[in-house]
Amino acid sequence: MTDFLPQVLAQIKGADENVYKQALERHATLTKPPGSLGQLEPLGARLAAIQGTIKPNLAKKAVVIFAADHGVAAAGVSAYPKGVTAAMVHNFLAGGAAVNALAGAAGAELLIVDVGVDAELRPHPKLWSRKVAYGTQNILDGRAMTRAEVEAACGVGLEIARTLATQGVTLLAGGEMGIGNTTPAAALTAAFTGRSAGNVTGRGTGVDDEGLARKVSVVEQALAKHQGTADPLEILARLGGLEVAALTGFYLGAAATKTPVVLDGFITTAAALVAVALAPAAKDYLFASHLSQEPGHRAQLTHLGLEPLFDLGLRLGEGTGAVLAFGILEAAAAVLSMATFAEAGL
Amino acid sequence: MTDFLPQVLAQIKGADENVYKQALERHATLTKPPGSLGQLEPLGARLAAIQGTIKPNLAKKAVVIFAADHGVAAAGVSAYPKGVTAAMVHNFLAGGAAVNALAGAAGAELLIVDVGVDAELRPHPKLWSRKVAYGTQNILDGRAMTRAEVEAACGVGLEIARTLATQGVTLLAGGEMGIGNTTPAAALTAAFTGRSAGNVTGRGTGVDDEGLARKVSVVEQALAKHQGTADPLEILARLGGLEVAALTGFYLGAAATKTPVVLDGFITTAAALVAVALAPAAKDYLFASHLSQEPGHRAQLTHLGLEPLFDLGLRLGEGTGAVLAFGILEAAAAVLSMATFAEAGL
Repeated sequence: MTDFLPQVLAQIKGADENVYKQALERHATLTKPPGSLGQLEPLGARLAAIQGTIKPNLAKKAVVIFAADHGVAAAGVSAYPKGVTAAMVHNFLAGGAAVNALAGAAGAELLIVDVGVDAELRPHPKLWSRKVAYGTQNILDGRAMTRAEVEAACGVGLEIARTLATQGVTLLAGGEMGIGNTTPAAALTAAFTGRSAGNVTGRGTGVDDEGLARKVSVVEQALAKHQGTADPLEILARLGGLEVAALTGFYLGAAATKTPVVLDGFITTAAALVAVALAPAAKDYLFASHLSQEPGHRAQLTHLGLEPLFDLGLRLGEGTGAVLAFGILEAAAAVLSMATFAEAGL
Repeated sequence: MTDFLPQVLAQIKGADENVYKQALERHATLTKPPGSLGQLEPLGARLAAIQGTIKPNLAKKAVVIFAADHGVAAAGVSAYPKGVTAAMVHNFLAGGAAVNALAGAAGAELLIVDVGVDAELRPHPKLWSRKVAYGTQNILDGRAMTRAEVEAACGVGLEIARTLATQGVTLLAGGEMGIGNTTPAAALTAAFTGRSAGNVTGRGTGVDDEGLARKVSVVEQALAKHQGTADPLEILARLGGLEVAALTGFYLGAAATKTPVVLDGFITTAAALVAVALAPAAKDYLFASHLSQEPGHRAQLTHLGLEPLFDLGLRLGEGTGAVLAFGILEAAAAVLSMATFAEAGL
């Protein structure tokens, strides 16, 4: 193992419980009936505990999309061909995808990272070229990544989270693009939550009944083939994907730099399962956004002890649900700066 | 009846069904799996149908708080004394309330309208002084408003919606402040939905069990006293409030000017029940935001055929939940401008 990971894991401490309590106490003094802002009150207190101030501020927001390909796509687990991953990266760079529209509406910066796309991508000012490999190996044939690859991919996400935190970004989200990636995400979810493959495997971009049965079988075979380790990074290397590994590193980096980070759907939350298995205190920095249509997403969130903020039937990925939650988190932070009864002379 | 209302009601036409269909058809051509944006897709299509374009734009947003007092507050139906209405208006003007923080976070303009506060309010650049009366009469003693008062208050909301639409505002929300106003809202909800008082009366700002029982009894007495009319404006005059009447006019004005308008919680949705009873086509311009903790809110939304976008346990009013939904509606509009598969060369 390279040296960075133990150092990062040792850096990760939980958020400040005292500030959490102070923020909730402050809420009881603000000019509104106590508790009347519902879930915004504990959400704001969590943000306060992370920033170490009862008046948190989330002015600067960024969403990072990690893109990579998957060997298991050859097993017919997606409604789309593998080449769509690279094509969608071009679409992100051209500003034409859903996440571009949503990031624009939310006032968030958008970055795209090639961590493992199976194509040569032309340089572009908005593209971070950090290709670790030209996609993973098929998890039906062998391990998805070598140990060196999984560590390198984690390192990419970690580096980017740290860079953004250094630039003053106060709210992060990760997104992903990778044809076939609901299959490794389902395998990781089964491995980390103990649920069955059938329980956590869904239709992804939209496979039919036959495709779904094939996916469940692929996940079952992969789990059977790769069982026998309890090391989270090893499970990730055997079953995961390069973008999932980068997201794992990204979440660890957010926690290490005390930056709140919003989960999107099924793929990103699979990466969060790995991050929290490596560093349980990282959970304090994670925020759920939507509840995905993928059936395994609820099991992931339950495992992490998180409640989604809304359920709008999304199943797109790219970070779209996470960006949609930015406004709610900003609001939860902003209300802690409202007037107290004493300040308002009430 | 003054002349303006029949004219306005005649102006209100439904949104454009053809554009609604075109927007849904466009969604199927955009660079994402069909249907993967869930509820954002029909939401965006509704916005398209209102603006008459498949690429709607909600850049300019405003929230208007209507404040008024209630004679029924004397019956001990609120956890707060009547004077809090005027005090909170000062708090809105000073920028210290929850809705100030949320409007700021959402990038929305905030206007405050005195339509019936039982106090002399000092002039302020942000305060629209449109006082129709110094609060309503106690609905246990007689009708809340005269026919002239209810029409004048409706006219205030109508005028403001029209003024904002003329200024190019593309997304509206109404909010309210009025100590005691969950009681008239419950009475209106029972009258318009046919539910019992016990079914639609809740704790408002936070009354105890005894207070809740008193509220239910007050609503039952008011309904018994004022039964015998099916005229929506007359029901509003007998049971409602000046801010509720202004909100009714505001929703009618939004519909007449083809401007989408977001509902907040229990009080605003009570006004929407009146508006839709007066002009059924006004429903096309109304958007639900959150599901309030007030038990009657679900019944109101069901009556209107609307589904809330999220449930964060809010029960504050002021327009807070509506403003929190602005970002989701902006997102639903924005994604209709993303690239098609053909445009992206996919």
